[in-house]
Amino acid sequence: MTDIAMIEAAAERLKGHVRRTPMLSSPFLDDLAGRRALIKAECLQHTGSFKFRGAWNAISALDPKGVIAFSSGNHAQGVALAAKLKGIPATIVMPTDAPAIKIANTRALGAEVVLYDRATEDRDAIGARLAHEKGLALIKPFDMAEVIAGQGTCGLEIAEQAVEEGVRDADVLVCCGGGGLTSGIALALEARAPGLRVRTVEPEGFDDVARSLEAGEIRENARLTGSICDAIVTPRPGELTWPILRRLCGPGLVVSEAQALRAMALAHDRLKIVLEPGGAVALAAALFLPGPGEAVIAVASGGNVDRAMTARALAESDELAEASR
Amino acid sequence: MTDIAMIEAAAERLKGHVRRTPMLSSPFLDDLAGRRALIKAECLQHTGSFKFRGAWNAISALDPKGVIAFSSGNHAQGVALAAKLKGIPATIVMPTDAPAIKIANTRALGAEVVLYDRATEDRDAIGARLAHEKGLALIKPFDMAEVIAGQGTCGLEIAEQAVEEGVRDADVLVCCGGGGLTSGIALALEARAPGLRVRTVEPEGFDDVARSLEAGEIRENARLTGSICDAIVTPRPGELTWPILRRLCGPGLVVSEAQALRAMALAHDRLKIVLEPGGAVALAAALFLPGPGEAVIAVASGGNVDRAMTARALAESDELAEASR
Repeated sequence: MTDIAMIEAAAERLKGHVRRTPMLSSPFLDDLAGRRALIKAECLQHTGSFKFRGAWNAISALDPKGVIAFSSGNHAQGVALAAKLKGIPATIVMPTDAPAIKIANTRALGAEVVLYDRATEDRDAIGARLAHEKGLALIKPFDMAEVIAGQGTCGLEIAEQAVEEGVRDADVLVCCGGGGLTSGIALALEARAPGLRVRTVEPEGFDDVARSLEAGEIRENARLTGSICDAIVTPRPGELTWPILRRLCGPGLVVSEAQALRAMALAHDRLKIVLEPGGAVALAAALFLPGPGEAVIAVASGGNVDRAMTARALAESDELAEASR
Repeated sequence: MTDIAMIEAAAERLKGHVRRTPMLSSPFLDDLAGRRALIKAECLQHTGSFKFRGAWNAISALDPKGVIAFSSGNHAQGVALAAKLKGIPATIVMPTDAPAIKIANTRALGAEVVLYDRATEDRDAIGARLAHEKGLALIKPFDMAEVIAGQGTCGLEIAEQAVEEGVRDADVLVCCGGGGLTSGIALALEARAPGLRVRTVEPEGFDDVARSLEAGEIRENARLTGSICDAIVTPRPGELTWPILRRLCGPGLVVSEAQALRAMALAHDRLKIVLEPGGAVALAAALFLPGPGEAVIAVASGGNVDRAMTARALAESDELAEASR
């Protein structure tokens, strides 16, 4: 079970290999949010998302001869780059409907990509079979103690940066799929910044974690396709992450796809960062949902987005209307 | 005359008020550049460009009752925010053809905006008259020792970050308008990192600095309108910046508008940062022009871009062709 000691060990392993991503802000976003809004720009991490943290930590800890991973894309790139830098081969199992740039990027990082149909095939079974056949270590996207510990290093940075910004009491909103990033950050903040409370953020229609937190037991998503927030669509909370989420996070927040797209456009205008829809839901919740306290921290977890999706986000809201608000 | 002592005094004044912007990189961009490419993401500075550095330093040093500035937009926002944080009024003289978002943002930061025609009116004369009439301190966009010193703090950070990255010998490419940022960085690196050599980068048709460096004396631009790189179009090198540019920088590099747009798209894909065309010319030169050494550092100086211009940059090059390169 992941704990603060494992997260601190991960931080030691990641030192000099991971970026300490900046905490950004804009007076325009403060006005929109109605409180100070701090944005942890994890899209600026290596491979464009937080996933490199967990991948690097798990591979460093396991020290395998080769690795396999199944992922909608961001975990794939994190594992591929970490394996490349470690000098070991990587096989990545990806859904056929993953954004083309994610598939291309994963291949360009030297990994072998195996595609599967998200609606009809079971990625866990495929991953387990390939891992067995080729003798590779499976690096799970979230349900793995060393992966959760790696993602938790983002929480250690948030704890430090909140102090630097003079913020000791705030909600920390985290884009939540299987819960690896969310639970890692929650464990880090529980130990290092108890005034910072983690809340999960998901897109409408794929809010398994919010419904699980409300029910007090695991609920599943009715469907797994059809969301622009592909990076954070998972069947249900993880076996390792769920007990942490239930104890430390929630109630869960839910935003619409239109709000995620608007947050992407505002990140373009005001923060000068590129976000993917699934990486923008926490910012959307910070800007568009009412919340307590004088400050809110949103983790902008990923920026691996097709150019067409960025263009759509920019086109769907009116810039000057935003600018003159 | 600006020197390293003034830059270090500026760094003291800016401490806690300016962001230490990250030095970003991507293996994909290394491949394109044919050497290690480090990108100083100054678009992530407050107000979306390096200009806040010089504005904050000049206003801190002069301690005026109110300020006036003339600017195509980025300097305007830097001065407006610095004045607002200092609690003094700001009047900004801007060209009528400045991007709408820059005018709106400057007003939203509490400044009074006075518009002028870039082709027919003399902004220096307008600025001087308003400064005289209202008793305001004129904060020049580049030809002012305290402004150059403030921009030079970006060079101090580059010197530190290059060491952190293990780079001791490289060209440092800087987007160059009037030369405030370029000359400030050049002075800082001369003192702190003599293995880092500054070179100016400008867009085709507005390459007054490159032609001046080649001639050994000041040359002017034939025209001042019609560039998408509006942020770095100035009539000629400054009186204070030119001697520094001539002594420490060059020969100057020149890129096409198409190359600037492609660099914007690659910054979107690979770095997850938003650049304006004038803020992307140094990255374009790093990626598309051959250069010496094992590493190149490009200063990505600004990201204040209309949504339509970002969409244009993303549409004009083929993403999958890029991804599979």
